[in-house]
Amino acid sequence: MIVKYNGDYTWDNVNVLSYKEHGTNFKSITRQVLFDGLADIPCQLRYFEVQEGGYSSLERHVHVHLVLILRGCGQVLLGDTIYDVKEKDVITIPSKTWHRFRANAKSPLGFLCLVNVDRDKVQLPTADQLSELRQNQSIAEFLDV
Amino acid sequence: MIVKYNGDYTWDNVNVLSYKEHGTNFKSITRQVLFDGLADIPCQLRYFEVQEGGYSSLERHVHVHLVLILRGCGQVLLGDTIYDVKEKDVITIPSKTWHRFRANAKSPLGFLCLVNVDRDKVQLPTADQLSELRQNQSIAEFLDV
Repeated sequence: MIVKYNGDYTWDNVNVLSYKEHGTNFKSITRQVLFDGLADIPCQLRYFEVQEGGYSSLERHVHVHLVLILRGCGQVLLGDTIYDVKEKDVITIPSKTWHRFRANAKSPLGFLCLVNVDRDKVQLPTADQLSELRQNQSIAEFLDV
Repeated sequence: MIVKYNGDYTWDNVNVLSYKEHGTNFKSITRQVLFDGLADIPCQLRYFEVQEGGYSSLERHVHVHLVLILRGCGQVLLGDTIYDVKEKDVITIPSKTWHRFRANAKSPLGFLCLVNVDRDKVQLPTADQLSELRQNQSIAEFLDV
């Protein structure tokens, strides 16, 4: 009933996994599953860690993310806004909202992310959607760094 | 969409609340609600902080708790076992399991606790249940400290 923390952003008997099985839309990010749903908590709790210079997938989906930054700082693109985020900030990623986390503050960026166990597939931007996003200069810079 | 952390275990625009409205079964503990359910995440995320010497309610219920220690260390009674817990340990409290957190390690004990938004009422021990629990010497000491 207790998943013990090892002291180095890993947990006892929890595997450090690939972020996703496929794709090139992300860089230097790992995943650990800390909780996988039980009874009336139909949610999976994951810990993602992005190394300096890395980023998560630029994506959107119907399901919601609840995120809490556990390590370091960085930025998140959320819809059409880029926010600085730091340890213990709590971030809600609403349905159908483009988002990406970046570790662009000279530190790793580690975050807890809660999702429903049953969730829809991630949608990646088409070329058209990407160029629409890029019309916003700040977003273009965020995506290019 | 971002609840900013203030740096002192409080968050911007989040009230520090009483642990519960009624009861004497707890000591020196506060509650902050960081997330209150959205779409396919039907869960409430709370941050509880127990000051040194304090403890949460000794209780059980049908609903499940998912806990992550965010500050300090202490102990938790879980069923008939007492565990030491520290920062970033993840604890699942299964259905119908007696539990209490104690800040008995010369530090505050702060933890995130996720529950379903719709959950059954907490059950406190009857005098008989309490004396049954106390037959275990370690539990008696844990409850008495």
